[in-house]
Amino acid sequence: MVYPDTFEGFAITSGDQWQSPKRFEFKPKPFGDFDIDVKIIACGVCGSDLHTATGGWGNKNWPLVPGHEIIGHAVKVGPKVTSVKVGDRVGVGAQISACLDCPQCKEDNETYCKEQLDTYGSVYPDGTLAHGGYSSHIRAHEHFTFPIPEALKTEEAAPMLCAGLTAYSPIFRNGAGPGKKIGIIGVGGIGHFGIMFAKALGAEVWAISRSSAKKADALKMGADGFLETRVKDWNVPHEFTFDMILNTASSDDGFDLAPYLSLLRVHGKFISVGLPEGEGSKVRPQSLLANGCMIGASHLGSRKETLDMLQLAADKGIKSWVETIPVSEKGCGEALTRLHNNDVRYRFTLVDYDKQF
Amino acid sequence: MVYPDTFEGFAITSGDQWQSPKRFEFKPKPFGDFDIDVKIIACGVCGSDLHTATGGWGNKNWPLVPGHEIIGHAVKVGPKVTSVKVGDRVGVGAQISACLDCPQCKEDNETYCKEQLDTYGSVYPDGTLAHGGYSSHIRAHEHFTFPIPEALKTEEAAPMLCAGLTAYSPIFRNGAGPGKKIGIIGVGGIGHFGIMFAKALGAEVWAISRSSAKKADALKMGADGFLETRVKDWNVPHEFTFDMILNTASSDDGFDLAPYLSLLRVHGKFISVGLPEGEGSKVRPQSLLANGCMIGASHLGSRKETLDMLQLAADKGIKSWVETIPVSEKGCGEALTRLHNNDVRYRFTLVDYDKQF
Repeated sequence: MVYPDTFEGFAITSGDQWQSPKRFEFKPKPFGDFDIDVKIIACGVCGSDLHTATGGWGNKNWPLVPGHEIIGHAVKVGPKVTSVKVGDRVGVGAQISACLDCPQCKEDNETYCKEQLDTYGSVYPDGTLAHGGYSSHIRAHEHFTFPIPEALKTEEAAPMLCAGLTAYSPIFRNGAGPGKKIGIIGVGGIGHFGIMFAKALGAEVWAISRSSAKKADALKMGADGFLETRVKDWNVPHEFTFDMILNTASSDDGFDLAPYLSLLRVHGKFISVGLPEGEGSKVRPQSLLANGCMIGASHLGSRKETLDMLQLAADKGIKSWVETIPVSEKGCGEALTRLHNNDVRYRFTLVDYDKQF
Repeated sequence: MVYPDTFEGFAITSGDQWQSPKRFEFKPKPFGDFDIDVKIIACGVCGSDLHTATGGWGNKNWPLVPGHEIIGHAVKVGPKVTSVKVGDRVGVGAQISACLDCPQCKEDNETYCKEQLDTYGSVYPDGTLAHGGYSSHIRAHEHFTFPIPEALKTEEAAPMLCAGLTAYSPIFRNGAGPGKKIGIIGVGGIGHFGIMFAKALGAEVWAISRSSAKKADALKMGADGFLETRVKDWNVPHEFTFDMILNTASSDDGFDLAPYLSLLRVHGKFISVGLPEGEGSKVRPQSLLANGCMIGASHLGSRKETLDMLQLAADKGIKSWVETIPVSEKGCGEALTRLHNNDVRYRFTLVDYDKQF
């Protein structure tokens, strides 16, 4: 069978086979009135794909097609869809469903809806396993399907849909703007967006990283300064000066929170968006007491924020730092492997979908 | 010698002798232009006194006179003091000094000043060990000396100066007021103020406690509801509904944060003011992700908040729940011992100072 009955993708067949995705045919969920079918032309490769593919986050649903930074063209729209028409270039990010009716959904917090579903790996109410964007097509509710401004290149827009939004939402919600000093821990896929978006919003931005290996890049992205955390007392000159720190680190090995928290102004916020596989850090109220700071986490962002972010990127000419890799069994495996080895500056986008599907 | 050369108090002589305070004479710090000498008439007994007296918080300076919920009369005022005159009834709380010049101090955050000194147990720049209010007198900078509104009884005003302010500041700063739902964990010295002040500010207030032993009291204090955490799924009906939770628990044994955090609305705040002696809780960003909530801590409050709180208490007729105990070696020991045994509803105030000093 072929589209529209089935879609095709490159699936991880088990956690120990994550480096060898296999071509795989699957049935999408039933088409709903608000749904859009998207013929995919590009997909970013996210750290989540790796955490899921290796089983590190506990996925048990195999085979599974990863990918949630998807760009494509609408090829079919449901009768109740109003925001997209066939032929439009659209994006789909890391969330594919929500109830759209609860207090969270009604306050632009659909990412915190109790019924929210991830774009891949989650199971729809009818039992269908959701697959991601290393594939020919995706079927998504229009609320989670975003028109892409013309000014943005496909391969650069793709990684904004998860990594970009994950950085944008917490810095926007926590007031990044003129007069604010924002720290971004980790110059990686999410971090590089954190630097660029915080700068675009008008804040003073400092990149924070273990070594200075990425210093030149961070400054090119727009960072006003760079802090190298392996230097003794690196934090001392900046104590009590940061309004907010975005922690994008995806590992918590040997991570000592204290010097980071010391950077914050009174009631400043330390917001994590990386989700380490480890057990986390011990936190005593005492650790937060010197400045009354707060530790939080943020999950993705809203549709409204997605549209705002894409427009900001278009208006300010923000360009994701991407390397493209042609999609295929080999290409998907290579992208995941290089991501695993931290051999990426700063995002892979899978392209050339028309050669495979 | 006697006042003004020396003060007298009841001191803890070592961590293992905390139940037997001894009469003790000590020299106060040199009198400064902004200082006020206060002849003490009452002092609340705070959990901090116990954590310090037992050595649980690591105090090494013995002998030490505890007490930081002090009421008395000004008997001497420095030449630059403008807010207090001899004879005024005034209070001194848990903070006795700050630089009053740094960005924190200038933004009503003197409690987060890097040079802040606790009322007892800290060491002044000249080397004098600061002693607290289980004593005849205290010498304090006017910034940390508060006129007490006439409507407040001495023994009821005393515990507001630490326990009251510790509750008031975070609930006020985090927006307690009409339309907000506030949870108070722990119906104790701080918690009972949390309930009364949150209610006085116009919020809906829920007391949260392990058992229902204090339910009747909590409702009498003004709580709109009571949650008993040993009941299975106690949190479920209230998920996503609290704007803020004030955690006053001073022990973290067996404390599982997850059900408490589940109560919070999106980006709601869980603020701890109890300082357990234990190692704290493991926190993973994942624990904070379902609602993007934040964990924080709060330290005391500002002079401005102290004055506002006292006026609110006077205006709304808020009455601390106190039991008075005459000050003496025996009385101080009894108060600390009963506090240690949780045999207090909800604060002791030491009184009858004129019989000892």
